[in-house]
Amino acid sequence: MTTSKPLIVPVPLGARAYDILVGRNILGEGVEQIKKLGVRKVALVTDENVHSLHAERIIKTLADNGVDVAAPVVVPAGESSKSYAVLAKTCDDILATRVERGDLVIALGGGVVGDLAGFAAAIVRRGMRFVQMPTSLLAQVDSSVGGKTGINSSHGKNLVGAFHQPSLVIADTAILDTLPERELRAGYAEVIKYGLINSERFFFWCEENWQQIFAGGPERDEAVAHSCRAKAEVVVRDEFENGDRALLNLGHTFGHALERIVKYDNARLVHGEAVAIGLAQAFRFSARLGLCAGQDAGRVEAHLKSVGLPTRLQDVPGGAGSVDAILDAMTQDKKVKAGTLTFILAKGIGKSFIAHDLNKADVAAFLMDEWNS
Amino acid sequence: MTTSKPLIVPVPLGARAYDILVGRNILGEGVEQIKKLGVRKVALVTDENVHSLHAERIIKTLADNGVDVAAPVVVPAGESSKSYAVLAKTCDDILATRVERGDLVIALGGGVVGDLAGFAAAIVRRGMRFVQMPTSLLAQVDSSVGGKTGINSSHGKNLVGAFHQPSLVIADTAILDTLPERELRAGYAEVIKYGLINSERFFFWCEENWQQIFAGGPERDEAVAHSCRAKAEVVVRDEFENGDRALLNLGHTFGHALERIVKYDNARLVHGEAVAIGLAQAFRFSARLGLCAGQDAGRVEAHLKSVGLPTRLQDVPGGAGSVDAILDAMTQDKKVKAGTLTFILAKGIGKSFIAHDLNKADVAAFLMDEWNS
Repeated sequence: MTTSKPLIVPVPLGARAYDILVGRNILGEGVEQIKKLGVRKVALVTDENVHSLHAERIIKTLADNGVDVAAPVVVPAGESSKSYAVLAKTCDDILATRVERGDLVIALGGGVVGDLAGFAAAIVRRGMRFVQMPTSLLAQVDSSVGGKTGINSSHGKNLVGAFHQPSLVIADTAILDTLPERELRAGYAEVIKYGLINSERFFFWCEENWQQIFAGGPERDEAVAHSCRAKAEVVVRDEFENGDRALLNLGHTFGHALERIVKYDNARLVHGEAVAIGLAQAFRFSARLGLCAGQDAGRVEAHLKSVGLPTRLQDVPGGAGSVDAILDAMTQDKKVKAGTLTFILAKGIGKSFIAHDLNKADVAAFLMDEWNS
Repeated sequence: MTTSKPLIVPVPLGARAYDILVGRNILGEGVEQIKKLGVRKVALVTDENVHSLHAERIIKTLADNGVDVAAPVVVPAGESSKSYAVLAKTCDDILATRVERGDLVIALGGGVVGDLAGFAAAIVRRGMRFVQMPTSLLAQVDSSVGGKTGINSSHGKNLVGAFHQPSLVIADTAILDTLPERELRAGYAEVIKYGLINSERFFFWCEENWQQIFAGGPERDEAVAHSCRAKAEVVVRDEFENGDRALLNLGHTFGHALERIVKYDNARLVHGEAVAIGLAQAFRFSARLGLCAGQDAGRVEAHLKSVGLPTRLQDVPGGAGSVDAILDAMTQDKKVKAGTLTFILAKGIGKSFIAHDLNKADVAAFLMDEWNS
């Protein structure tokens, strides 16, 4: 295995500061950084898919470099592992490795593993350090950065969890070569989200370069590093989501509602696809409210379509539920504050903002039109 | 109901500072303080026993004072509720009340409810504020103060949890009048622990006044307030248990092992009883190592006995397991660091200290003698 020098994105969170390493085949450099954390023993959590593809090589590299890794904790692949039951088993399996306070949990996998293992690390022995090794594009550009961890409840997605910052993130972009095309596309929805939030330039660059990002050229590293930097900037301003961090939820209020309606069935809809529809909807809703040009909403939708992402309620296989069902699913979202609806809307590409106290009737009317369009 | 002025013990933890109110019939004052927190809605968690004894009156008082309380979340009484399953149900039940971030969880009950509901508050919506209303002596003097929350794992007690400080603690000592004698005694083990840690004077005062503490005189309020102050001082020095806070574990390394061996069966051993045996053992072990006078160990044991608490392995109904079983149970304790044993030992009454790197063989020999004594 060749090892190259990674791009380094610092996340300056004071006592909880950490670095994100981004690049192709950077495991060697990653292991050096892990050794600097001064751990005695490592509990590695991964899922069945990642385990068969990557775990052996990674554990061997760690062991060859003198890091004591316990037998890996392997959970079933898929969103259904973000459950109370799998959390309980993961915590018990970590405890069974006899890691102690001050030791390390490594989350090797996509967003599900990162959220689950990160949450387990937050609560086993009332908090252990952990390192994210994200293996999906979605996890590399979004869920592994910022310290949000958690599981789903029957009441909604990510409603149970903790803010627990990793000690290090190792985003090896070569690992994405083994990712199914659909997963890559889904992660890409979060990449262009950063352009839509506050960088028209990055969105335009994505329109030009998306094929190289998918193909694994240096543009992929650039896109991942830019996304991490963009997210880190927001997280540093608002670690515990009392304000600005909500911007990162662009496309997610609609998106989470859809995921809830399909009961997190990945066969029908994965998170990034729900976000893609949510992004397109956020822009169409903004245009409908006269906040942004219809042209911008059209451009967002066109780009999402060109990479093969869904953009409409009608694109949800098996249907997206009634307007009432979607509204109800939205009001149990964490972003609800004192009964009013909060949305992230846009005045144009790269000009998103937090809109409080939105009129529920306006949302309902918009959804009705979406259904009839 | 008459309402009196409480004693106030401040816990100065910076952004997480809070007050502990201690006194007889102080609910009225407590509600005033809750209102000052500016909450919209309250989810109250309690257990079946406390629910039938106290919940109705407390909910009515809150409601009469304009605090919106959802239907209470009621869990089974007893240590077995500190489980993954009851935690999951508690989180879901709290979510079902549709409380939002910024709202409040109230933990009304003993140590189990406080640990469980506090942990649920720590993780529902990635952290909600909560108020402790401890209804047992144990909870008033120990578990409700300091922010440790959590549940048990098959690997050991409190191995899964969070540091999550309450926003307020309301310790109504009149509520202890309804407590079974055994529970009062068990809580009292934690009271005298504070004397044994660093205040010979408080231990002597307890020897003189324990009957008034049990009877519910003003000495009870004094003992609870002193205990809270003593614990708060340690917690403020070391919120996340990286050092001094371990002193609070005096009697707990042996105690937790015994609880584990009886599988947390309260019929055989409640936490305070395990601590009582652990306290006596910590002093006998200290005496055996030549650290403290045998007279001190004798005096500790005599006082524990005089209030009716157990002090010997032989006092555990159904047996305390073999020496090997006890040792094994101890090494999975959170206080194990890099494979060596850490104990809280004493150079005398009120002169406890943290002893690192204890020789396991010495502990084994001590336990063997204990069995044969």
